[in-house]
Amino acid sequence: MSKLRKDEVVRIPLEECEIPKQWYNIIADMPNKPGPYYSPMTGKIAEPEEMMAIFPKELLMQEMTLDRWIDIPGEVRTMYRQWRPSPLYRARSLEKVLGTPARIYYKYEGTNATGSHKLNTSLAQAFYNRKEGIKRLATETGAGQWGSALSLACNHFGLECTVYMVRVSYQQKPYRRSFIQTFGAEIFPSPSTRTMAGKKILERDPGSTGSLGIAISEAVEDAATHDDTNYSLGSVLNHVCLHQTVIGQECKKQLEKIDEYPDVVIACCGGGSNFAGIAFPFLRDKFSGKNVRAVAVEPTACPTLTKGRFAYDYGDAVQMGPIAKMYTLGHDFVPAGIHAGGLRYHGDSPIVSQLYHDGLIEAVAYAQKPVFDAAVTFARAEGIIPAPESSHAVKGAVDEALKAKEAGDERVILFNLSGHGYFDMAAYDYYFSGDMVDYEYPEKILEESMKNLPDIK
Amino acid sequence: MSKLRKDEVVRIPLEECEIPKQWYNIIADMPNKPGPYYSPMTGKIAEPEEMMAIFPKELLMQEMTLDRWIDIPGEVRTMYRQWRPSPLYRARSLEKVLGTPARIYYKYEGTNATGSHKLNTSLAQAFYNRKEGIKRLATETGAGQWGSALSLACNHFGLECTVYMVRVSYQQKPYRRSFIQTFGAEIFPSPSTRTMAGKKILERDPGSTGSLGIAISEAVEDAATHDDTNYSLGSVLNHVCLHQTVIGQECKKQLEKIDEYPDVVIACCGGGSNFAGIAFPFLRDKFSGKNVRAVAVEPTACPTLTKGRFAYDYGDAVQMGPIAKMYTLGHDFVPAGIHAGGLRYHGDSPIVSQLYHDGLIEAVAYAQKPVFDAAVTFARAEGIIPAPESSHAVKGAVDEALKAKEAGDERVILFNLSGHGYFDMAAYDYYFSGDMVDYEYPEKILEESMKNLPDIK
Repeated sequence: MSKLRKDEVVRIPLEECEIPKQWYNIIADMPNKPGPYYSPMTGKIAEPEEMMAIFPKELLMQEMTLDRWIDIPGEVRTMYRQWRPSPLYRARSLEKVLGTPARIYYKYEGTNATGSHKLNTSLAQAFYNRKEGIKRLATETGAGQWGSALSLACNHFGLECTVYMVRVSYQQKPYRRSFIQTFGAEIFPSPSTRTMAGKKILERDPGSTGSLGIAISEAVEDAATHDDTNYSLGSVLNHVCLHQTVIGQECKKQLEKIDEYPDVVIACCGGGSNFAGIAFPFLRDKFSGKNVRAVAVEPTACPTLTKGRFAYDYGDAVQMGPIAKMYTLGHDFVPAGIHAGGLRYHGDSPIVSQLYHDGLIEAVAYAQKPVFDAAVTFARAEGIIPAPESSHAVKGAVDEALKAKEAGDERVILFNLSGHGYFDMAAYDYYFSGDMVDYEYPEKILEESMKNLPDIK
Repeated sequence: MSKLRKDEVVRIPLEECEIPKQWYNIIADMPNKPGPYYSPMTGKIAEPEEMMAIFPKELLMQEMTLDRWIDIPGEVRTMYRQWRPSPLYRARSLEKVLGTPARIYYKYEGTNATGSHKLNTSLAQAFYNRKEGIKRLATETGAGQWGSALSLACNHFGLECTVYMVRVSYQQKPYRRSFIQTFGAEIFPSPSTRTMAGKKILERDPGSTGSLGIAISEAVEDAATHDDTNYSLGSVLNHVCLHQTVIGQECKKQLEKIDEYPDVVIACCGGGSNFAGIAFPFLRDKFSGKNVRAVAVEPTACPTLTKGRFAYDYGDAVQMGPIAKMYTLGHDFVPAGIHAGGLRYHGDSPIVSQLYHDGLIEAVAYAQKPVFDAAVTFARAEGIIPAPESSHAVKGAVDEALKAKEAGDERVILFNLSGHGYFDMAAYDYYFSGDMVDYEYPEKILEESMKNLPDIK
């Protein structure tokens, strides 16, 4: 390896042999562990048998374990080699445009075929399901990144795949649909008439634009009512966050090579998995005294951490999936159809929620337009068009860099550019049209949506 | 660097310091040099002064030089570091699907922001133009890959950019338009009413779907009629082929690492630059006796090498640009609106043409449907959706692999996956709809279109 110099480097590479061999399970190190899941049937702590109707055993074990390190299976790691280690960039042009003394680094997870970090977990999930004899996976997708990632993974491991795509995104992103079909998966706009859950929602609201919570209900029902089918979730759950930790582990090695360590780690946060992926390996250092901040960025149109309640709630709209302790806006909350479809989830990862509740991480919410302002500034400077979701992290990093400028300090900022926006150009058209609308909910509406939480303390 | 084993490797990396420091100029080694350009005004060999109305001096020197190696400027090489060296993959899954004893490798040029090899030359062209005080570049684009690449490069080097996009592609690929606008360029469907050339075509054929030849006329006119503006071409010319040779040079280093050498190198061929990029460094070995084949793949809808004539012809529809000795279907030829917009050029690189004429390379033409069959097979096996243009190379490689299977030999196949298809999903929708039409022209029509060649021997 040629000697890398901090003052020169643009892209910080890693060798293939430096792809992590294990995932990092942050639960092992958390001062307060995330709460157990409750059963929507019994109202009691969920029995593993109940969860096994929709998840394979090995993923359930990963969900519950206190082991700090989990070995990455060889077949998954072989697939990781298609695009991992992913590049870490120093955002020199962006720094110049902002006139900041901060040093900004971004990890770019968009170089794989599906264009986002989601493939890190979809490959793992497809692998374990196939290993346990499952024939088909059912899932939801928001913006389509997760559906793309799971369809590719299922195709690779020889599984069938059924995707319920939030209707508003299905309409806004026809090319994601084509992508998913190219990999042989079937895809339906959600709410659909294929499930009881979908029908129930459509009866109540025939024009429903859908939500992640609804699409999850449909996929869970599909899995629960078919023996050969399991459910697969692209974020939120502990094992999904676990699989994403390859991101942060690689970042640490890459930054070490140029003798850097971040003052602040920033990622967008919908269900929490890409935030988890980049932040958890750094939080491990924080637990042992290191001074590092982690900031989760969410949209004002779905302000789960910043405006939600830390309480037990259903993970899905129709109350079929496990009940989790998390920040939530209420399982009935249907956020405005902002383009960052991947951030339209009413709840959040139980781990991320616990960390936020314990004051170990920060959260901030931005409206759509300033997020796209930052995205276009970033694109013109760095040459990559970010996904609308990832643009929230860009906005967070830009604000942090401007604060550093104001304070005149050399802050080191690391953020996760979790995916590219090449399937989201309609959102950029909308932005350039000048018609883009910002959403912010009055407290009253949010209070209303949080009224129906289940009675678990 | 960890030891790479041929029987295990998936992605063959290179270190950043192994990005080529020079471009390879094949003209230095060609037994017969490409013919000189002629002036459309005088009918005589073009004077450099005439060409300097639309090109910067340094690029003209690169166009004419017999020097074998040209240094890559530091600022261009710094930008190359954003995504170069690009990965070389062993297509293990594709090999398995085809059941071939052949070893298939592909160079993937789609990992940069604009998704194709075009950025290799756009950065160089923008750099030299800015260096010589030019304020704006005008260009044409077919599928939009070139327009994307030039808009990004212009934005980076502080130039304005005007793109004339072939109308049929402008309609088929709205997201390419958004991409180009995101980088601050202005873009017009061609033929447009902004130029005399465009108006002339529209008078003749108001419903014209456009062609690369027409769009080139518009861009050349725009450049020639504005002092501060130059013209920039994404393929065909010698200096463009030159800039692409970083591709093949990297491939050679990557294959050396696993002790491989290709029996055959395959690339799609529109104007010829991505073929040049991967093939020329290997042809250098062929000139000194090495046994290596190079195959250019074109669509039956625009069969320049396989059905055209080797003769002097205008590079553009309205006869404004230089006259070049090349394979041509006639400058009036307007190919069917196939989705591989980047391959819809009536002519071809003078260098590639001369090599083909001298029997040093091969060419083959495929219809659209079998090309998409191969593309979907490739996508499902390898996890990358290829651009329609690049899919021609995929089809070429698949056929070569099947021939190897028939012959029972271990042929080593290398092809250039010049770009991804994430902006081309409408073409895949069209393919899956079952309505896709194949085009093949009867000799008579081609004879007709080749009747108006200029009288230069």
